[in-house]
Amino acid sequence: MFDGIHSEKIAKLVQGECTDPSILIDNVSSLSDANNRSITFYIDKKYKNLLAKTNAGIVLLKKSDEALRPSGAIFVNDPYLAFAKIANFFLNTKQDSGIHSTFISGNNFKVGKKSFINAYVVAGNDVFIGENAYIDSFVKIGSNVKIGSNVKIGSNVNIGDDVIIGNNCNFFSGCAIGIDGFGYAREKDKSWIKIPQVGSVVICDDVDIGSNTTIDRGALDNTIIEDGVKIDNQVQIAHNCIIGRNTIIAGCTGIAGSAVIGKNCMIGGGAMIKGHIKIADDTIISGGTGIGKTISVPGERYTNVFPYNLKHKDWLKIAAKLKNWIKNDK
Amino acid sequence: MFDGIHSEKIAKLVQGECTDPSILIDNVSSLSDANNRSITFYIDKKYKNLLAKTNAGIVLLKKSDEALRPSGAIFVNDPYLAFAKIANFFLNTKQDSGIHSTFISGNNFKVGKKSFINAYVVAGNDVFIGENAYIDSFVKIGSNVKIGSNVKIGSNVNIGDDVIIGNNCNFFSGCAIGIDGFGYAREKDKSWIKIPQVGSVVICDDVDIGSNTTIDRGALDNTIIEDGVKIDNQVQIAHNCIIGRNTIIAGCTGIAGSAVIGKNCMIGGGAMIKGHIKIADDTIISGGTGIGKTISVPGERYTNVFPYNLKHKDWLKIAAKLKNWIKNDK
Amino acid sequence: MFDGIHSEKIAKLVQGECTDPSILIDNVSSLSDANNRSITFYIDKKYKNLLAKTNAGIVLLKKSDEALRPSGAIFVNDPYLAFAKIANFFLNTKQDSGIHSTFISGNNFKVGKKSFINAYVVAGNDVFIGENAYIDSFVKIGSNVKIGSNVKIGSNVNIGDDVIIGNNCNFFSGCAIGIDGFGYAREKDKSWIKIPQVGSVVICDDVDIGSNTTIDRGALDNTIIEDGVKIDNQVQIAHNCIIGRNTIIAGCTGIAGSAVIGKNCMIGGGAMIKGHIKIADDTIISGGTGIGKTISVPGERYTNVFPYNLKHKDWLKIAAKLKNWIKNDK
Repeated sequence: MFDGIHSEKIAKLVQGECTDPSILIDNVSSLSDANNRSITFYIDKKYKNLLAKTNAGIVLLKKSDEALRPSGAIFVNDPYLAFAKIANFFLNTKQDSGIHSTFISGNNFKVGKKSFINAYVVAGNDVFIGENAYIDSFVKIGSNVKIGSNVKIGSNVNIGDDVIIGNNCNFFSGCAIGIDGFGYAREKDKSWIKIPQVGSVVICDDVDIGSNTTIDRGALDNTIIEDGVKIDNQVQIAHNCIIGRNTIIAGCTGIAGSAVIGKNCMIGGGAMIKGHIKIADDTIISGGTGIGKTISVPGERYTNVFPYNLKHKDWLKIAAKLKNWIKNDK
Repeated sequence: MFDGIHSEKIAKLVQGECTDPSILIDNVSSLSDANNRSITFYIDKKYKNLLAKTNAGIVLLKKSDEALRPSGAIFVNDPYLAFAKIANFFLNTKQDSGIHSTFISGNNFKVGKKSFINAYVVAGNDVFIGENAYIDSFVKIGSNVKIGSNVKIGSNVNIGDDVIIGNNCNFFSGCAIGIDGFGYAREKDKSWIKIPQVGSVVICDDVDIGSNTTIDRGALDNTIIEDGVKIDNQVQIAHNCIIGRNTIIAGCTGIAGSAVIGKNCMIGGGAMIKGHIKIADDTIISGGTGIGKTISVPGERYTNVFPYNLKHKDWLKIAAKLKNWIKNDK
Repeated sequence: MFDGIHSEKIAKLVQGECTDPSILIDNVSSLSDANNRSITFYIDKKYKNLLAKTNAGIVLLKKSDEALRPSGAIFVNDPYLAFAKIANFFLNTKQDSGIHSTFISGNNFKVGKKSFINAYVVAGNDVFIGENAYIDSFVKIGSNVKIGSNVKIGSNVNIGDDVIIGNNCNFFSGCAIGIDGFGYAREKDKSWIKIPQVGSVVICDDVDIGSNTTIDRGALDNTIIEDGVKIDNQVQIAHNCIIGRNTIIAGCTGIAGSAVIGKNCMIGGGAMIKGHIKIADDTIISGGTGIGKTISVPGERYTNVFPYNLKHKDWLKIAAKLKNWIKNDK
């Protein structure tokens, strides 16, 4: 049984200042669900009430909030970041290892030590998986695929041929990586001829990819996801995109083909980014925003949606006025 | 063989008024495909022509439309609702029961009577499934999962650890329930640390979840979907959302983390709802609409999109005029 | 081993004019990755630099660009279309055939010659698949399904009961075709009664369907996808839609129930199209655009998004001015 860790040791882990060094902690929790052996965090004054009533043994908070919680506290610069580190420390559990007897692969399959392959996984020829990997059920891995160490692949994930995946990546359920991109040339009779998609996808280290997200293989060259990129659920990244280091992309976003996104960008949910454009480093794109042209200056924020929370009857008025502008123009 | 039901008995089922009590009905159909043993419905005058020409034995319609169909009719207050009830009555077929020999589970698996598990299903430890459930192929169920009675789970569905599912729910193909939410804290070097997602998902009774929809597990507390909620395909519901009773959400909608949606709301397709806000009961959100702030007053409708059906050349003019506003402001 | 093809023969294939008839070509490539046995193409002056430096044996380009590449060239009217045809010629590889021993089906399963079924595929009763088909792992095919010849179905695809699929179709990983549509009637207490979805889906010839795209079965009549339609990833097509011949639909688009889209339309990524409307042939809909009413005149382009690339602070100004319009109206 796990006996817990003293708050003093935890404080050292996150370079914090501890009010009570000997409190024993054995779980992470929210303010409302905490017990006297829980550690939790406080950053948002919206939750002031919950802080006052929490049963938590230790709360991580800013020194400037000391008055709200003078004891049973560890003071840190960034309580959320500190909490993330502590939670990962607590939850770093051991996993099973071994390959289930139902696993089917082609020729030349290799997997590193301490890796686990769950029931009903299929791989093609020439597949290499590193150490301490976790591959869940109903994962299809194509041929000529390289997967690094400490990679977790959720159930029902699809990985196409020739995909290369680095270390410490998480692929969540139902995502599809390296499947054909959407490329067609038009005949004179308006029918479409498929362009074979012969590039692949390179996923670097520390990349997370959400459930049911799709990242297409390149048409000729590769689609590339650089180190540290985090992608939410139901994101679509088309062929030949390059997503720069540590960029984060929220759910339902679509990025069209050959777009090149800089480093450290933050892209809100449901954003739509045109193909063949470039976006500078550190750009912030608000949720629901369309980007239609290259952004060259780094570090700026963009938004393009109608005013939020518009009542339908007010929207009707504004829409009519805008349409009126065209009439007067003629 | 099924010999059919007399129109009189059907009329009683939906408290309707029957013009011809002895017509034998053995199938449900559309106006255009009906034969003389079909029952169908009429509500929209757009389909007046089809009504005139239909071969249906019985049409459900409003008493006020009696002139359009004086015989072969059942008059009801809500023809669509009446049709739904009758169709469910006709189509309530018996299903297979039993567990396919390819089913693989961990320790402590229990399933109720009359349930069916199709080929190639995998479950973790401590999984309990109620009576009359249907689990289709390639479903992955995590550990410590409870599923109620009369639940149908389509092919390739993913259910994470600790998920609780009530009775009479439908999960359609490829949806992912209880997979990790999207939570990261930022380091000084702009890299991201994953916040372990240790909450789960609670799905109450009578909930439908569409194909390829994703509902994330909570970060610390649970994500909650209340009784009677109906969710369409490709909807993304982030961690710690609460969706109120009988709310209906159309396809491609995204709801960011910790949003709390009231009861009986109607959310149109492709809507985008910000995180950490509340939406009052009975709110109607039009398709494609972004909601960025809390809505406190119940029962109002919101819309925020550019005027519909705008020709590209007119859009160029309006966009230019709007951009001009900024220039003049400087 | 494949010894390559002379440029003269390639030029005939695409009715082009060849500067050097005896260059041996054995691969297709991009301008940047090409070697002296590669064929590639040039259409966009953005890539002028890459053209100047390419090692390609042959470049497909327009006669009007002859000055940029006077030798090692084939001149054609449409270099992209010509490249598509040549690439398909090079990449038309032989596939495996046979049925993996793990395949499970109900009664009455038939499959044509030279077809391949990979490990862990499940089909219901009365399933017929044509010649030269490829069915990848974890595909679930319902009952009473007909699939034509030369059809490729990717991993984790879901095909519902009664679906009919023509010849030469590609279904990419994780798509769901013929699963229940989203139809409910409302009770007085605001709960929802599911309308059974008893129509199905008819997919004609030469249709491509992207990863994680969903096409719902019809409520009573069928959902229909006509010949030559190409659909990208994560598109949602609701029950009873009809998509006209050779229409192309980019990723993340949503089309609501019973919409009828004409032939040869081009629909940009993230478009949202209302239900029960019609869209004329040859309509172009820009990315992110909502269409809320029927379009009767063919061949026009529509756009409805806020001006692109709007800085957040400028958006705040415009949003405030628009909201001001309402105030002044009262």
